[in-house]
Amino acid sequence: MPKNRLEAFSDGVIAIVITLLVLEIHVPPLSGRARNAELLRAVLALAPNFAAYVISFLVCAVWWVAHHNFIHDLAQADRVLLWANNFFLLWLAFIPFPTALLGQHPTMPAAAALYGLICMLTGLSFWMMRLYASVKGRLMKQHIPEDEVRRRVRIGLLSPVAYLAGTICSFWLPLVAMSLYAAIPLYFAVLTIRGRTVPVPEE
Amino acid sequence: MPKNRLEAFSDGVIAIVITLLVLEIHVPPLSGRARNAELLRAVLALAPNFAAYVISFLVCAVWWVAHHNFIHDLAQADRVLLWANNFFLLWLAFIPFPTALLGQHPTMPAAAALYGLICMLTGLSFWMMRLYASVKGRLMKQHIPEDEVRRRVRIGLLSPVAYLAGTICSFWLPLVAMSLYAAIPLYFAVLTIRGRTVPVPEE
Amino acid sequence: MPKNRLEAFSDGVIAIVITLLVLEIHVPPLSGRARNAELLRAVLALAPNFAAYVISFLVCAVWWVAHHNFIHDLAQADRVLLWANNFFLLWLAFIPFPTALLGQHPTMPAAAALYGLICMLTGLSFWMMRLYASVKGRLMKQHIPEDEVRRRVRIGLLSPVAYLAGTICSFWLPLVAMSLYAAIPLYFAVLTIRGRTVPVPEE
Amino acid sequence: MPKNRLEAFSDGVIAIVITLLVLEIHVPPLSGRARNAELLRAVLALAPNFAAYVISFLVCAVWWVAHHNFIHDLAQADRVLLWANNFFLLWLAFIPFPTALLGQHPTMPAAAALYGLICMLTGLSFWMMRLYASVKGRLMKQHIPEDEVRRRVRIGLLSPVAYLAGTICSFWLPLVAMSLYAAIPLYFAVLTIRGRTVPVPEE
Repeated sequence: MPKNRLEAFSDGVIAIVITLLVLEIHVPPLSGRARNAELLRAVLALAPNFAAYVISFLVCAVWWVAHHNFIHDLAQADRVLLWANNFFLLWLAFIPFPTALLGQHPTMPAAAALYGLICMLTGLSFWMMRLYASVKGRLMKQHIPEDEVRRRVRIGLLSPVAYLAGTICSFWLPLVAMSLYAAIPLYFAVLTIRGRTVPVPEE
Repeated sequence: MPKNRLEAFSDGVIAIVITLLVLEIHVPPLSGRARNAELLRAVLALAPNFAAYVISFLVCAVWWVAHHNFIHDLAQADRVLLWANNFFLLWLAFIPFPTALLGQHPTMPAAAALYGLICMLTGLSFWMMRLYASVKGRLMKQHIPEDEVRRRVRIGLLSPVAYLAGTICSFWLPLVAMSLYAAIPLYFAVLTIRGRTVPVPEE
Repeated sequence: MPKNRLEAFSDGVIAIVITLLVLEIHVPPLSGRARNAELLRAVLALAPNFAAYVISFLVCAVWWVAHHNFIHDLAQADRVLLWANNFFLLWLAFIPFPTALLGQHPTMPAAAALYGLICMLTGLSFWMMRLYASVKGRLMKQHIPEDEVRRRVRIGLLSPVAYLAGTICSFWLPLVAMSLYAAIPLYFAVLTIRGRTVPVPEE
Repeated sequence: MPKNRLEAFSDGVIAIVITLLVLEIHVPPLSGRARNAELLRAVLALAPNFAAYVISFLVCAVWWVAHHNFIHDLAQADRVLLWANNFFLLWLAFIPFPTALLGQHPTMPAAAALYGLICMLTGLSFWMMRLYASVKGRLMKQHIPEDEVRRRVRIGLLSPVAYLAGTICSFWLPLVAMSLYAAIPLYFAVLTIRGRTVPVPEE
């Protein structure tokens, strides 16, 4: 299994997940005789759903960039990596459900905690894939210094730990947790713009 | 991040958005004993949903062509452009929701205004991406004359301004606004056929 | 716009449409206390939905093969062809709605007629694209004999005419029309297997 | 029809199916005044839906790998193979429906049996495609020994036979059948990791 096929399949899944998010926002059921003011109120009441949409869009976009950078630094793929990648996609493709739940019940600890849990598991499975490729499988490109490979494994734990913190926080302060869920991908997006987590250029 | 991967991902998202639009049209719930005349009436009552489907299909198709032309004129992509593109896709991928709202409540200012607002933000984010690539990032191909680059930045404001006009119009005349939403992409489609906004050929 | 991008986008749309068809079949709403016999009856009552799924899957698969063959015989694409292709995709991407309607109301003339109408318009828009490419645009490969090009334009009318016949038939005999909707793509699938409508080999 | 287009289309369909699975899990309808404990109970009650999601994700991922390996070993494709592949995709793309049914009625024989039946038909249609390519069509690469080709045709029957066993089992023990449905793709995933069913390397 060449690595470009792994990437094409993963890109397809991420593009579909990111586009399905909007399907979880339903048009408010109003009677045919409803007036404009009622519709406006009903649409404004969807604000948490809109917020959850934006957060999950950002989460998936960050994963897309991170996944692309990771694959770029791979020298080759093997069968264990293939299934580690499928395990990562299993969690990522599940995100639309906690997104819908969070959008409909933003003040409920159960909804905020499930969202954080799934994001944590997505991050953890990505980290496991990187760990395997870096240590056990020795699949990273030869010209990347050993130090850099190890630094990335360490950085890779940041995301699941941050989402774990959000999950714990959500039991008492679900809305603070939701803000954290927005801040985490924003932080990583800024990191990729500043070039701290971009692929290592060829020598 | 090479520009062809940016384009493949964006193409995937646009193809999925354009195909999801139909999912927002639901089969009218009729009892099992309903007669043909009732079903016919119920299907004909979906006419605004069909119209909204056609308009949004056209909107997305125009964005697909515009996006392709823009990427074609790029010499290269950078990380800021990558996130500017993600920001554009965030709005584009949201279009199925206002489409469904407009289809179900075509005479309501709130529905027509939201549709125009999202289309305006889609156009504005595309314009911001072009502005960055043309001025700050200096990412356009060298052989394109400076005048042409600036002309396209100016033309790029046409779309968000037109949708802003539609949004304002929708507060008083929602159905006129809806016609405008159909006319704008039709106008741009004709422009691309006449070759006024196509990529600049290589020298 | 090179023709391979036209094809990739169209392939994406067709692959998504073919996969969305199943989403229109809903799990029958049963109370938590329902017994197995009730569930079995409810699933068996979905038989028309299953039939509509199979028919539309076949319809889309035939269009995929036909579209691929057509693009293969093209020497190049132009902007008019691009929009003719978008017009074709507009109808094709709409097919999940009449499929759902036909699956839920298979004995109703209104449902069977709408299905035939959309399939007819899909075929007609494909024929218009072929007509433009063959006559006005002169976009077909040079080595294809003029006779063969004209024969294909004639054959291209078969599909919309057959669906028109089905649409008319559906006003009196909706179930016969539905059988016809299944027979038409089956006939074209057999044609492609027998090699009567495959691309013209390079000389 | 070159085999890489067959593969790209199939990959697209499989990626979409795998990502649509989550759409079948609906947010539990709770009143706006529901408390956190109620939401938690409602989410926990979705456990069978989550299990069905994981099983079907695994099933599709295994088919993706198997399909890729099969295409890799093909020397070329022909028109019969093209339609055999479409027939396989017809069943695979249907999986979201029995997944939803199984998730909502995990203890019902009718739901468990339908799931097994569709998986069996998916496996059988894949086996028919392989049989045609190996025997009648002679489409496999020349350097693969005849013995290996025949061994793979025999192995290919394992999957439909295992799902048939699950289907029969589901009439009396639906939950045992569900465990079997999880065990089958897990077994094949382990096989692919151990390299027992990977493509034959070029000489």
